[in-house]
Amino acid sequence: MKKKSTPIRILVSNDDGVDALGIYALVREMKKLGEVTVVAPHRQQSAVGHAITMNYPLRVSKFNKDGKFFGYAVEGTPADCVKLAVRSLLPDPPDILISGINHGSNTAINVIYSGTVSAATEGTVLGIPSIAISLTSYKVTDFRFAAKFARKLAALVLKKGLPTGTLLNVNVPAVPEEKIKGIKITRQGKTNWNDTFDTRRDPNNNAYYWLTGTLEILDHSEDTDQIAIMNNYVSVSPIHYELTDYKMLDTLGTWGMEKLK
Amino acid sequence: MKKKSTPIRILVSNDDGVDALGIYALVREMKKLGEVTVVAPHRQQSAVGHAITMNYPLRVSKFNKDGKFFGYAVEGTPADCVKLAVRSLLPDPPDILISGINHGSNTAINVIYSGTVSAATEGTVLGIPSIAISLTSYKVTDFRFAAKFARKLAALVLKKGLPTGTLLNVNVPAVPEEKIKGIKITRQGKTNWNDTFDTRRDPNNNAYYWLTGTLEILDHSEDTDQIAIMNNYVSVSPIHYELTDYKMLDTLGTWGMEKLK
Repeated sequence: MKKKSTPIRILVSNDDGVDALGIYALVREMKKLGEVTVVAPHRQQSAVGHAITMNYPLRVSKFNKDGKFFGYAVEGTPADCVKLAVRSLLPDPPDILISGINHGSNTAINVIYSGTVSAATEGTVLGIPSIAISLTSYKVTDFRFAAKFARKLAALVLKKGLPTGTLLNVNVPAVPEEKIKGIKITRQGKTNWNDTFDTRRDPNNNAYYWLTGTLEILDHSEDTDQIAIMNNYVSVSPIHYELTDYKMLDTLGTWGMEKLK
Repeated sequence: MKKKSTPIRILVSNDDGVDALGIYALVREMKKLGEVTVVAPHRQQSAVGHAITMNYPLRVSKFNKDGKFFGYAVEGTPADCVKLAVRSLLPDPPDILISGINHGSNTAINVIYSGTVSAATEGTVLGIPSIAISLTSYKVTDFRFAAKFARKLAALVLKKGLPTGTLLNVNVPAVPEEKIKGIKITRQGKTNWNDTFDTRRDPNNNAYYWLTGTLEILDHSEDTDQIAIMNNYVSVSPIHYELTDYKMLDTLGTWGMEKLK
């Protein structure tokens, strides 16, 4: 058991890269709570899902900000960063992991593509209470309210604990603090990407395809992450990686699958 | 509605790359069921999780095998391949998607890292009944039984249908057909990677880190995917990407979170 006098050890990662504004604001705030170690991708890794690097070795360098050591930059994915931090770079496992603050929301279907959530998922896999936090805009540069909320929530999580295998996915509306209506505990919403690929031709007439798309909301319930942020609530969703569809387990039992051998 | 005389349209993808043995065996078998289109990564993409490419365009080339057109090779992830196939390359959505046959199992915790499962997840996101199939060995080269099982299961899925948002994750033991004991409908098992990083130094004395690890089984129940394959059963797990931890939703309600604003 850790003695009460030992400072709280906080691991911070993200998917926007070690030099992103969001992680900078988060670190500044988390330092008020304890000892912060930053281990983050050396460059932007958005929409990498829960990737880990297995066929190449990982390289790490020290990254300075404002002339001082800020953290470790890993040539890898968010999940790589967390695994490497916990299993190799840190002398002891951290007490808590915070991933973010992401530039852009991670709600509904986007959760499965999110590198920000992936870092927190990997923390959870490794047994560390973990929080992913995102601000719902790619453009806003004021992360102060989101950072403050992350610190307060982290303190609460350290007090209450999280069940094995469960993390918190937080989304903060990108509006001035006084416009935030409150905190909502939410479930993952249902949305659909109406993807299209913009097909173009290079100078040699070979096609290349740019992904683009618009988001369609399939569930307008107020208790979903997607609708909560649209209504200017901070959204806190408990998510896990227990993927079994238990309802379908029973249905499959009636299919006569044993005859397929 | 499609007329009865129209052939079944099958989309095949994987994460081992368009030239892998496993996809070749799968395609040969699926051609007995209908019209096959292959859209797969141009090279190996294992453990890419559910990544999609957003900051770069995708390039596609035609790939030949044995002197004949075999399929489209995409410079992207498994999820990219499926999205591009459905939204751009194919004139109509396929009736079914099969991802595999993967070289190596995708059970328990590995499901969240799996590119093979990711391709099937993206098919499911796009509303297509989808199956991921893996053979539990990196070394065995006889994919015939797994391929036959994929064809029979695909025919059953086409008849019965799958619920919105649910896919089937299949793992086939890499043993001779006569040693397979039967088919088991399973839930996702619980395992843990005891990861370590092998730290080495390059000629300039900079460190680099190779991921390595051993798998620890945390749940020995016979109805899990992990134990089923170890007992020489074909494992069929229904999985979904509804990630909300509903039990934790209630607990969070007692935390007094509204005071955090």
